[in-house]
Amino acid sequence: MTLMEPIKPAATAGITCTVAALRRAVIAAASIVQRRNTIPVLSCLRITPRDGLLEIEATDLDSWLTVDCDATCAAADPFLLDAFVLRALLVGAETSDSISIDRAADIVTMRIGPTTIRLRLLIDAADWPAEPGTDGMIWSDVPETALAKMIDSVRWAISTEETRYYLNGIYMHGRDRRLAGAATDGHRLALYQTDADWPLPDLIFPRHSVAALRSLLTAGGNRHIRVGGSTKPAMRLVGSGWTLFAKCIDGTYPDYTRVIPVRSAMRGHAVINRALLRRFPNPNVFRHVRDGIKFDLENRIASLSSVSFGPEVEARIEADGDFSIGFNQSYVREAVQNFGTVRIEASTSRDAALLLTEDPDLTVVLMPLRM
Amino acid sequence: MTLMEPIKPAATAGITCTVAALRRAVIAAASIVQRRNTIPVLSCLRITPRDGLLEIEATDLDSWLTVDCDATCAAADPFLLDAFVLRALLVGAETSDSISIDRAADIVTMRIGPTTIRLRLLIDAADWPAEPGTDGMIWSDVPETALAKMIDSVRWAISTEETRYYLNGIYMHGRDRRLAGAATDGHRLALYQTDADWPLPDLIFPRHSVAALRSLLTAGGNRHIRVGGSTKPAMRLVGSGWTLFAKCIDGTYPDYTRVIPVRSAMRGHAVINRALLRRFPNPNVFRHVRDGIKFDLENRIASLSSVSFGPEVEARIEADGDFSIGFNQSYVREAVQNFGTVRIEASTSRDAALLLTEDPDLTVVLMPLRM
Repeated sequence: MTLMEPIKPAATAGITCTVAALRRAVIAAASIVQRRNTIPVLSCLRITPRDGLLEIEATDLDSWLTVDCDATCAAADPFLLDAFVLRALLVGAETSDSISIDRAADIVTMRIGPTTIRLRLLIDAADWPAEPGTDGMIWSDVPETALAKMIDSVRWAISTEETRYYLNGIYMHGRDRRLAGAATDGHRLALYQTDADWPLPDLIFPRHSVAALRSLLTAGGNRHIRVGGSTKPAMRLVGSGWTLFAKCIDGTYPDYTRVIPVRSAMRGHAVINRALLRRFPNPNVFRHVRDGIKFDLENRIASLSSVSFGPEVEARIEADGDFSIGFNQSYVREAVQNFGTVRIEASTSRDAALLLTEDPDLTVVLMPLRM
Repeated sequence: MTLMEPIKPAATAGITCTVAALRRAVIAAASIVQRRNTIPVLSCLRITPRDGLLEIEATDLDSWLTVDCDATCAAADPFLLDAFVLRALLVGAETSDSISIDRAADIVTMRIGPTTIRLRLLIDAADWPAEPGTDGMIWSDVPETALAKMIDSVRWAISTEETRYYLNGIYMHGRDRRLAGAATDGHRLALYQTDADWPLPDLIFPRHSVAALRSLLTAGGNRHIRVGGSTKPAMRLVGSGWTLFAKCIDGTYPDYTRVIPVRSAMRGHAVINRALLRRFPNPNVFRHVRDGIKFDLENRIASLSSVSFGPEVEARIEADGDFSIGFNQSYVREAVQNFGTVRIEASTSRDAALLLTEDPDLTVVLMPLRM
């Protein structure tokens, strides 16, 4: 089977559906397709006509995503189409258009409103890599809203450093048999505690699947997601009209609990928000300012110091305490970007500080910077 | 004078103004400051306190821009501050804040709302490169709206190719002593005819000054811009609260008039719009489709052909004629992006076509692609 030798499937499918339905499914599935692929089949979506339904599948060999699309069709053999071409055609179509898809030998003809598209089937659907099984998985129902909230609360703290690969994901684990999610890069930690039952093994859900999973979830409402986990390690999530299988990270998550300080030991605080940080030049943009932002709790001043005669900036803040503490400005910016107004509490200028948000289920720890 | 040796200006300035006024002036002036500068003075803005006014100046040695800012201050010596740092500080400030600026020896202290910023003066204002004079300039008043309309209508066709440097700008010239603007890259041409008197010499206004000029202009209203031109070649434009001096391109613009076809010779047409082009995959994104888009006027079909078994796309269009004509899809996309619905008229499949928009003062010519 070479790329230059079109394949000839036996069956012919007559499929009709709406642009809105197919677009939603294809955009979701295409989100896990890698931009560059050395294995041609991985740049495709597998489309399987079932009775009254199209199954749209994508994989990057680490995760398998299936999204359903309402359609008028009969069950037929699956076929593979380029994910990004299909997505571009659907994004460009008018939402009010209807779509018909016909297959004859190795040509798929799509009619979208006034447009006719002929796509040649180049890769045999039999080459599609099979999704690993769910043997030995333990299952639980997790409220969709809680899962979405957990991801939003901790994903910003996931490490991108490859050397400590076991930090490249969200540690989904049971605390008192309730699902908790933790993410850390060694400088900051976010922990979110849900009320959901978690009889599953503790798993590190990988960063590159987090975005795909989050876009499938709808916050609000009271639907549940069926979640299965095994020590392979792998996780399978089944929502309304979609299924995501993700290989998890094979490693041991560090015992993060020992870095979380006790709130009663805190001896000072500062309150920061987006408007305050906008007033400071961003060190990622200006090389003349240092990375650190210093909070002088006693004088109630936040300040930024400069290198080589750059600008020195200070602003009045709400604070209390008798010491100063500094942080990497990028980390403070990301926390504030995610949670709005944040209260920083610290015991000394050297020990881990707590960042308190409006959410009582969220714990954020930030290591100070020596400055 | 080195960067490490702060300068000591004699005067002290007490300046107050609003964030809104200074931000507008600094954003406008900073727009012509280059991101990377080997000459440190060019990364600065020159700020000159006058009675009741701050003059904010920027230059890249090809253009000089001065923008006025209402302020409470007395005339004093100018000083230089980093353009991008100043812009970031002002963009981050609240619009309702007021600003005070004080200078003592080599330190400028700015107070913006609750923030205090100390900026060290590193570069002597005497190092500021002087703006060339306006000797021998011929002047005219051009309606601001007509100038803005002309730029918007033709700037997309300016060449970015360095070898034919004389095409890297808008050719502002007199046709029957009225200002016309032309831009072309050899494949397409846009010509806009205004009613404004043009006693000035014909000048090629450079691409990199076009963006700065356009952002200074307000379309609508009936104000006039004072425009001076000399054969140095250079142009000076004076608007309400701003002045832009631009060196023009020293070259001879080609006689573009001979490529403009006569409309009476046209024998076919096609109508295209944004919704139609959205339906086609963009060849800049997908390597499997060819650059060209073909209009079959007889069968009223627009089509895109593919390479190596990519998608073949065709759509019904409004058209008339007995031949087919092809164009580079990027050029068609840019025209439609700028003008919405466009009517393409052509005489044969090989000769230059006319693109007609809703604006009778605009002429657009597009060379076909052999396909």
